[in-house]
Amino acid sequence: MYSFTAPFVNPTGSPIRELFKYLGEPGMISFAGGYPAADLFDVEGLQCATERAWSAPTKCLQYGPTDGVPELKEEIVALMRRRGAACSSAELVVTTGSQQSFDLLLRVLVAPGDTVLTEQPAYPATVQALLLQQADVVTVPVDAHGIDTDRLAALLNSGTVRAPKLLYTVPTFANPTGATLTLARRLALLELAVKHRFVIVEDEPYAELRFCGEAVPSLLALSEQVPTSRNWLVYFGSLSKVIAPGLRVGWTVAPIEIARRCTVAKQTVDLCSSPFTQAIAAAYLAQGSLDSHLPRIVAAYRDKCETLCDEMDRILDGAIEFHRPQGGMFVWGRCKTGSSSTLLTQAIAQKVLFVPGRAFYADDADDSTMRMSFTAPTTADIKEGVQRLSTAMERSFS
Amino acid sequence: MYSFTAPFVNPTGSPIRELFKYLGEPGMISFAGGYPAADLFDVEGLQCATERAWSAPTKCLQYGPTDGVPELKEEIVALMRRRGAACSSAELVVTTGSQQSFDLLLRVLVAPGDTVLTEQPAYPATVQALLLQQADVVTVPVDAHGIDTDRLAALLNSGTVRAPKLLYTVPTFANPTGATLTLARRLALLELAVKHRFVIVEDEPYAELRFCGEAVPSLLALSEQVPTSRNWLVYFGSLSKVIAPGLRVGWTVAPIEIARRCTVAKQTVDLCSSPFTQAIAAAYLAQGSLDSHLPRIVAAYRDKCETLCDEMDRILDGAIEFHRPQGGMFVWGRCKTGSSSTLLTQAIAQKVLFVPGRAFYADDADDSTMRMSFTAPTTADIKEGVQRLSTAMERSFS
Repeated sequence: MYSFTAPFVNPTGSPIRELFKYLGEPGMISFAGGYPAADLFDVEGLQCATERAWSAPTKCLQYGPTDGVPELKEEIVALMRRRGAACSSAELVVTTGSQQSFDLLLRVLVAPGDTVLTEQPAYPATVQALLLQQADVVTVPVDAHGIDTDRLAALLNSGTVRAPKLLYTVPTFANPTGATLTLARRLALLELAVKHRFVIVEDEPYAELRFCGEAVPSLLALSEQVPTSRNWLVYFGSLSKVIAPGLRVGWTVAPIEIARRCTVAKQTVDLCSSPFTQAIAAAYLAQGSLDSHLPRIVAAYRDKCETLCDEMDRILDGAIEFHRPQGGMFVWGRCKTGSSSTLLTQAIAQKVLFVPGRAFYADDADDSTMRMSFTAPTTADIKEGVQRLSTAMERSFS
Repeated sequence: MYSFTAPFVNPTGSPIRELFKYLGEPGMISFAGGYPAADLFDVEGLQCATERAWSAPTKCLQYGPTDGVPELKEEIVALMRRRGAACSSAELVVTTGSQQSFDLLLRVLVAPGDTVLTEQPAYPATVQALLLQQADVVTVPVDAHGIDTDRLAALLNSGTVRAPKLLYTVPTFANPTGATLTLARRLALLELAVKHRFVIVEDEPYAELRFCGEAVPSLLALSEQVPTSRNWLVYFGSLSKVIAPGLRVGWTVAPIEIARRCTVAKQTVDLCSSPFTQAIAAAYLAQGSLDSHLPRIVAAYRDKCETLCDEMDRILDGAIEFHRPQGGMFVWGRCKTGSSSTLLTQAIAQKVLFVPGRAFYADDADDSTMRMSFTAPTTADIKEGVQRLSTAMERSFS
């Protein structure tokens, strides 16, 4: 009856949605979530920040500037400086989460039919946003060290794809692979962007969740070393994984001309992000709570990640191959004995959930892969969950 | 250097932005704002609602459902029922303000080149959103009784425009005209939508701000009287003008198939609106604060509106023609002696601001028109402001 525009339902997203119905089942242990652990939210610190925000109620309750509340912009500029990637306020746009950062950027830069490169496997909402914008999505494979820049270079030089407008990457503790792009590949990627004149989107929600190993500088921090590469770089930050998703606070750092266009687009998209949650975020950062609370989240995730990896080593006897991530929220596995979709059926019967890897492929899915998130379950549940997974494997593949 | 998509800067929006620089000047009296009065925000009620929201902190701080937090959806369903326009939860999508409601709907229904009808004059961000979506905007004139449905019928029957996808209207206390669509025209509009198979967008942020006269039912409430018209009707509600814009809570009521598409689009746009501000809004509504506080806002606006209109009658001696609105936030005037842009230059020198009417025209602007908002200034300032306007008129046109 209605004539709708564009393709809106992303088939690669649906395997995750299908799992939702099992999440509430009593006794279910879930490695399927992509959410931060709710019991680690700093409720007290956020309540304190809320009190501080209420000291100027009018500012919180009225419309605010489209590019963000000045107090929050100042705090984010300071945060970016501490992360080794200084930016100016004019380069910064506060958004309703980094999902909106991506949406605004696509609207500003990507016309229907434009080529956009993404990692594969990748976060499904990324691919969905690209489909909504009717981009031509071209995937670049990822290994344990992130996006394969040699294959990317070969692709760009091959003449088989149209010159890309954009490349989207989560270089540190990627979703779903947990992989971190090496320093050498980061520099290579910046050089490719300059040479082939495409914009790199560096989405960095997880980088502060590092358990071990040495921090690798962000592409934004490294751009100083590759002349003019900063012109081809857009960075997305987020408070969702380090403070709380419910604030819906993310941000874009972009060359001024792009940042300005994103702000103009945001005027028609939602006028402004909530000045109230922005004021809470600003107060939380100003009171130093991120620095004091984040180590507790990191310690808990480290513990959970180690438990998951240790138990998989101990119990599964190599039946699921995986790399230990140095941070983030995800372990990416490969089921050596068969399809993870087949395994999932038995796993659900055993009351344990994970996401079959095919959910993260735009094309040419590797059905043996699977994503396990360790953030939500307790360490006791993680142990029990791996045990159940072992039973499920026996039933699936024996 | 970058190749941007689409036209992003709406020239009709800029006259408003140009005024921003004068707003902070000491002693300036502004009728230019489009914001609700900050001193009428129910800070105490909202603080109380925030406390209640904190009783379930995890729900507030985690990601929430894309279509809205269930507690808020229930409250909005109840609110719509009290407004005489019952809807189901499946027809309802909570948004980051009704600006987002419009953006999502355009993405779902409007392809580049599609014809969209709007009132003229109209709220500039509407036109800007349509330009962003590359719609073909066709305007329909508005008089003191809202959109002229006879002229609309003639236009639709003339064959001079392509069949429209959408018609956007603010039928009650419109921005900028303050006009309210008559009952007869409402029914005519619903019939035209059925006959010509276009979707009416009924944007209703101001209807609860009625000072006098009898309430006219919304198009949504009236759709029962026009068979199948409900299939062609999308309603936008908002808490911005009756509680506070800073919560960024609006909603869409749409036929289920459209609502579902809007939710899918919202997944890629911002995943969800802040569950924290949604929880506050739900608690505020549940504790009955809207019903207890709204009469105070209405009484204050009535007083301010009467003062503005009385003083214009008394002092300006008919030099600015206007209709007394029965509610809302705006008085629309026509400067009988010349251009309101010319008048504005003198007005700024006299330290009084208004928005020249050309800001609200997509084409063919009537430069004698002007919008005055009475919500922000005190009644004393309103009196003084009209006096200054009188001086400015003498200097402009004598």
